[in-house]
Amino acid sequence: MASNKEFVFRKAEKNDLKVVVEMIQELADFEKMSDGPQLTEEDLLRDSGLEGGPQYCHIYVLDLKETDKVSTIGYAICFFSYSTWQGKSYFLEDIYVKPAYRGIGAGGRMFREVAAKAKEFGCKRVDFHVLSWNPASKFYQKMGATDLTEAEQWHFYRLQEQQLDILSKELNK
Amino acid sequence: MASNKEFVFRKAEKNDLKVVVEMIQELADFEKMSDGPQLTEEDLLRDSGLEGGPQYCHIYVLDLKETDKVSTIGYAICFFSYSTWQGKSYFLEDIYVKPAYRGIGAGGRMFREVAAKAKEFGCKRVDFHVLSWNPASKFYQKMGATDLTEAEQWHFYRLQEQQLDILSKELNK
Repeated sequence: MASNKEFVFRKAEKNDLKVVVEMIQELADFEKMSDGPQLTEEDLLRDSGLEGGPQYCHIYVLDLKETDKVSTIGYAICFFSYSTWQGKSYFLEDIYVKPAYRGIGAGGRMFREVAAKAKEFGCKRVDFHVLSWNPASKFYQKMGATDLTEAEQWHFYRLQEQQLDILSKELNK
Repeated sequence: MASNKEFVFRKAEKNDLKVVVEMIQELADFEKMSDGPQLTEEDLLRDSGLEGGPQYCHIYVLDLKETDKVSTIGYAICFFSYSTWQGKSYFLEDIYVKPAYRGIGAGGRMFREVAAKAKEFGCKRVDFHVLSWNPASKFYQKMGATDLTEAEQWHFYRLQEQQLDILSKELNK
């Protein structure tokens, strides 16, 4: 980048959460799951531990600093996962760059920053999920990530809330 | 089960961790990844917060109580994950019943107990990964879980430790 433009990757603050919520919705729209996001700024504030309390997620933003302005152009949300093989691990739940700012190295910068955070926290790996049709798959593979669904046949399963209710009730019969 | 046999699902204590480490290895052997497990009892003790410090995982065991003995026959390891759509979630990293004790409802009991724990903790869903050839897939589907790799084309990706080193170094160039 020219010297008058600079990326700054940083932990999100309270004032960033409005833009983060907007970007979460943009990502869901791209993933063709517009009805997915249900969290508010207040939810993210509480769950990221920014005002005390347990920290369930780590929220990061990427700023683009130009001569006369600073724009928040992307975000990443991570949490600590755990491997019974390797111990403490990092999970990258979301990574997103606003469409108008693609092709200038923002995604690569954020992805490397997340890898560095994982190392800083003593994590042995970074896991994440990608929709198979998402063109970003190629980017992740270029970054050295392995598609474990392809390589080892791992499938991703989910029990939804309604099913948790049913199973819990069966337990109490 | 006959009235002289009873399941007890409980949080693992320090004295259980030896058996848990053995069962982690048995599960890896079954998954044809015998070289995977690298954790010791001490690692699990530290990371489960049993002696203070941050809690990166929740370790549970299932006991079978019979008239004259109590046997630990299975385990489950979970952690808090985070969804940018639904917030705090639960991730089931491992669930395992010793082969000699299958077919008596132990897996179903543990799975329902994990669902109840997720609800107790205010989690909206339980996520997990399953090898596509694992016959337990049918069990999970019977329990109402959705295979999101099949249904929505989600693939599971990983950056391994060596790649974290490479990416972090590229950042500092």
